[in-house]
Amino acid sequence: MQERFDLIIIGAGPAGMTAGVYAARKKLKTLILTKDIGGQAAWSSDVENYLGFTMVTGADLVAKFERHLEEFKDDVTLHLLNGGVVRVACNDDEIEVTASDNQKFRARALIITSGKKPRELGVPGEKELLNRGVTYCAWCDGPLFKGKDVVIVGGGNSALDAALNVQKLVHEIYIVNVAKELTADPVMVEKVKAADNIRIINQAELKQIEGDKAVIGVKILDHDSGLEKDIPCQGVFIEVGYIPATDYLKGTIDLNDQGEIVIDTHNATSLAGVFAAGDVTTVAEKQIIIAVGEGAKAAIAAAQYLAKS
Amino acid sequence: MQERFDLIIIGAGPAGMTAGVYAARKKLKTLILTKDIGGQAAWSSDVENYLGFTMVTGADLVAKFERHLEEFKDDVTLHLLNGGVVRVACNDDEIEVTASDNQKFRARALIITSGKKPRELGVPGEKELLNRGVTYCAWCDGPLFKGKDVVIVGGGNSALDAALNVQKLVHEIYIVNVAKELTADPVMVEKVKAADNIRIINQAELKQIEGDKAVIGVKILDHDSGLEKDIPCQGVFIEVGYIPATDYLKGTIDLNDQGEIVIDTHNATSLAGVFAAGDVTTVAEKQIIIAVGEGAKAAIAAAQYLAKS
Repeated sequence: MQERFDLIIIGAGPAGMTAGVYAARKKLKTLILTKDIGGQAAWSSDVENYLGFTMVTGADLVAKFERHLEEFKDDVTLHLLNGGVVRVACNDDEIEVTASDNQKFRARALIITSGKKPRELGVPGEKELLNRGVTYCAWCDGPLFKGKDVVIVGGGNSALDAALNVQKLVHEIYIVNVAKELTADPVMVEKVKAADNIRIINQAELKQIEGDKAVIGVKILDHDSGLEKDIPCQGVFIEVGYIPATDYLKGTIDLNDQGEIVIDTHNATSLAGVFAAGDVTTVAEKQIIIAVGEGAKAAIAAAQYLAKS
Repeated sequence: MQERFDLIIIGAGPAGMTAGVYAARKKLKTLILTKDIGGQAAWSSDVENYLGFTMVTGADLVAKFERHLEEFKDDVTLHLLNGGVVRVACNDDEIEVTASDNQKFRARALIITSGKKPRELGVPGEKELLNRGVTYCAWCDGPLFKGKDVVIVGGGNSALDAALNVQKLVHEIYIVNVAKELTADPVMVEKVKAADNIRIINQAELKQIEGDKAVIGVKILDHDSGLEKDIPCQGVFIEVGYIPATDYLKGTIDLNDQGEIVIDTHNATSLAGVFAAGDVTTVAEKQIIIAVGEGAKAAIAAAQYLAKS
């Protein structure tokens, strides 16, 4: 029988790691269950808006967070899971978390910070050519496309971040954006427009990814003219946003229409003793600096709950 | 006539500076009006819970924030006020902020991050002996009490932070705490209890500060025995919490019973175009790492408001 913890934290992105530091400072015996360290933050290229660091890569920032958490290793145990969490259940003031390998973990309180995962396009060729030219992580896979032509799908911050990240490495970049204009921060739009190897195709929808053993091109539909067009390319970076990683919580905790965990101003969920923080929740914006604040709030709320219960 | 800004931010603590960085990234023409740089954060001795920095002084962290903000000086103007803001008014989609010297500033949106100020005890001798032994800022004034005996009033994080900050400098410390137990974080309580020159007096109330030209002692009431007692000392550090700096907003914006600005999950206040963030608001916890997240949320909300209006 596994020992029982005061607190389990699911996820080790910015929200989860901050919750860990705060829980340790409250002397809570804490277990962090996670598939990875850093979550989406680890895949950001340049982070310019985490106060205190004028410019830092996502990977460096995550490494700093990890070192910070290690200072508290007497109180916080980090446990890496291969397959992640599949179930959360509440029985008699105890919360049980089940991993995909059927291992069970128990605590008196839980903070969910399982973040988000890339949204898929759902077009022909997407699944078939995954990792054979199709990627959801320009930051990780960018170097594989040196000197190649790539299509980036999306027009927000993550699409433009991907474009700027691989711009000097690849040959030509086509940004295929369904909206009328790019929706990323103006500073990023300016940089992308100034680059001479980036072409922006607005009001266009990617319909199909073509290739057999590897990507050879994409078919797009121009919403303005109504015409279909082929773009030959060797890589397709899909950057059309993220969906909350909450499949395992359906029927257990209140989620909104987008699948985000509904939280109140104290980060409490619909289940007593269960708190949530960061991108997985209904918090207004998804940003590293907001996620850390939310993680701190959730840990303080969990500590207050445990002190009372 | 002063030029009109897109956005005015009142205050330059962690929330205000983060809002400034985020506003600049949205290319908003922004003016920060403030009495100081860093707010309360500047007076924290050791900050162990701002993720990314295992250990940093408040002053160092504020200096890093300031350097970060300077990167965006093309879009953000920092204007130091001697006396602070005395009035906020809304006329026809324009917000007018009046400083104590009657200077007026105008913008289409406003973010209030004016933070909090130390709570006073309201006991005889407190006002009379201010800066003659009585201080609300152990961090700033601590060095004046080298080798002296000091009383610290309070039992929370700021009281214990003050004690640990001056512990090696002063001769003897008496912590006068009205509650049954110290309410600070356990890690701080442990350190204070381990120090051999700190005496903790729980369930005791400071009734009077004595002295003529300078503090010579305090009178306390022991709530357990009902007896009064004198403690000779040369310094009194008052660390009994903070109140929101919102006097100038009364009647203009909805405040709660504690005087905090009521905000929704998007940091909007009761007045259109006016947002608020950080310790001055109803946010659940007052922490640097929470304030920066709130500042980012407020700036994003203000940018969205401006894009629509």
